[in-house]
Amino acid sequence: MRVLVLGGNGFIGSHVVDHLLAKGVKVRIFDRSKARYRSSLNNVDYRLAPFDDVPALAESLEGIDVVYHFVSTTVPSTSNLDPISDIGGNLVGTVRLLQLMVQKRVRRIVFLSSGGTVYGIPDVVPIPESHPLRPVCSYGVVKIAIENYLHMFGHLHGLEYVILRASNPYGERQGHKGVQGVIGTFAAKVLAGEPIEVWGDGSIVRDFIYIGDLADLCVRAGCTGGSGIVNAGSGIGYSIKDVINVLSKVSSRDVQVCYREGRPFDVPRVVLDITKAREWFDWEPRIDLNAGIGQTWQWLEKITQ
Amino acid sequence: MRVLVLGGNGFIGSHVVDHLLAKGVKVRIFDRSKARYRSSLNNVDYRLAPFDDVPALAESLEGIDVVYHFVSTTVPSTSNLDPISDIGGNLVGTVRLLQLMVQKRVRRIVFLSSGGTVYGIPDVVPIPESHPLRPVCSYGVVKIAIENYLHMFGHLHGLEYVILRASNPYGERQGHKGVQGVIGTFAAKVLAGEPIEVWGDGSIVRDFIYIGDLADLCVRAGCTGGSGIVNAGSGIGYSIKDVINVLSKVSSRDVQVCYREGRPFDVPRVVLDITKAREWFDWEPRIDLNAGIGQTWQWLEKITQ
Repeated sequence: MRVLVLGGNGFIGSHVVDHLLAKGVKVRIFDRSKARYRSSLNNVDYRLAPFDDVPALAESLEGIDVVYHFVSTTVPSTSNLDPISDIGGNLVGTVRLLQLMVQKRVRRIVFLSSGGTVYGIPDVVPIPESHPLRPVCSYGVVKIAIENYLHMFGHLHGLEYVILRASNPYGERQGHKGVQGVIGTFAAKVLAGEPIEVWGDGSIVRDFIYIGDLADLCVRAGCTGGSGIVNAGSGIGYSIKDVINVLSKVSSRDVQVCYREGRPFDVPRVVLDITKAREWFDWEPRIDLNAGIGQTWQWLEKITQ
Repeated sequence: MRVLVLGGNGFIGSHVVDHLLAKGVKVRIFDRSKARYRSSLNNVDYRLAPFDDVPALAESLEGIDVVYHFVSTTVPSTSNLDPISDIGGNLVGTVRLLQLMVQKRVRRIVFLSSGGTVYGIPDVVPIPESHPLRPVCSYGVVKIAIENYLHMFGHLHGLEYVILRASNPYGERQGHKGVQGVIGTFAAKVLAGEPIEVWGDGSIVRDFIYIGDLADLCVRAGCTGGSGIVNAGSGIGYSIKDVINVLSKVSSRDVQVCYREGRPFDVPRVVLDITKAREWFDWEPRIDLNAGIGQTWQWLEKITQ
């Protein structure tokens, strides 16, 4: 099997690459830049170009069996500032990718959608995949539009797809400068001896999934047949306060918290129902929040020495 | 009440304008071109500009209470040929409109979505608004993305919206050159003594709504408070063969039919459940298929004399 990982030098992509290589899969990476936290790997075919470089993207699809698509030009917290860029960067770019896949006869794609934003404010928790979609941020709107184009290309051109609606992944190699993931951001602040900033009162609940568990699920989704939509979370909810407590214990440090006003696009409680992922891919999340935050902390200590 | 009708010179928009004027509402029309089948009206404020002319669009919103949005740069049958233009023309243009509405403090919008495409291949008929959305054409994907942005702008900025998921409208002033609506297209062919072309075997069922009934519903949706999504159809299904039989009777002519291969994006059966529209807006479709096709035929005879 030959695999193309779009965004393979990023946080999630780089872990998926490791899991694929461990299984003996031939990996090509398409990314706009080099990996931030590690050197290039010997046994990987790198293609460095921006996502809107159509000739480079087309070339990178040659001889590929499965595409993993982890490219995103926005994050939920900033997408509402400029929805039109969100549409231009992510939606248009992905439709172009799907058109190229049809042209090049690449049959299968695993796409990372967003379990934290597509459902909006949920009616039930844990949230099943059949829950209505009522996003309140552009990031979620665009993810749904991409999901729908995947379904359409499946129907019209026989493209096989797995849509993974990921919750909040965290772990080694995640950016920790403020926009991408609270756990890394909080840990970096604690390590620097600075207070952490919390939007709202810390009661917001999220489904945090350790990156190793998510990468394992991604690899299984690429190697199994059939098309569909699957929640990709831990299935367990922790509040922001819970995270701070675990971080305080793991780091053996006092954690200073600075509370700020809540944001209207932050959904109060998101926990995903992961029954379908368990059954379809014979998968199980293995690293709990304590162990996961422990590993994240150790990695952060190491790179900041 | 002062109203802006985007696409007010087009088929649906022009009928909504008539119904608004009959109610004494002040009407401004924003359209890229003049009405095809009638002269300008004295008591209407016309603004002729393309939908992507942002300054003209912004200016047209001054002093407006309710916006009706009937602009579309694509139709279902051609949207798959170039989804990226569909996204650029319709989705980006509408998000820009919503941003301008927030800036100009225009509080309410009625948006015409597509009951024929957003549901995809339905699990149940008649289809309620809560049915899952699984479109198989770009037109439907983009309509859903716009619906989601409306919901998001409602949540974040207090914008009020009614989304009308229209089925297949037909009647006077509809284009009849082939892409927009089978009834007008078929009638024009019969009038010209030419054979009509049917994709598939004529068993495809659609929910045809007479334009006067749809315009009535649109006006009620603009004048009633609250936000939501409503199916806008007749609630009754007729096959393409039924339409041909009615047309044959109404025209008193022999109708020649030329059957062609079915298209993969044509859903076999769409009939909308219109309970919600009936209850929310105290509305009822009044013109049945016989009467509606009769009026369409008479209009077509008149303009081709």
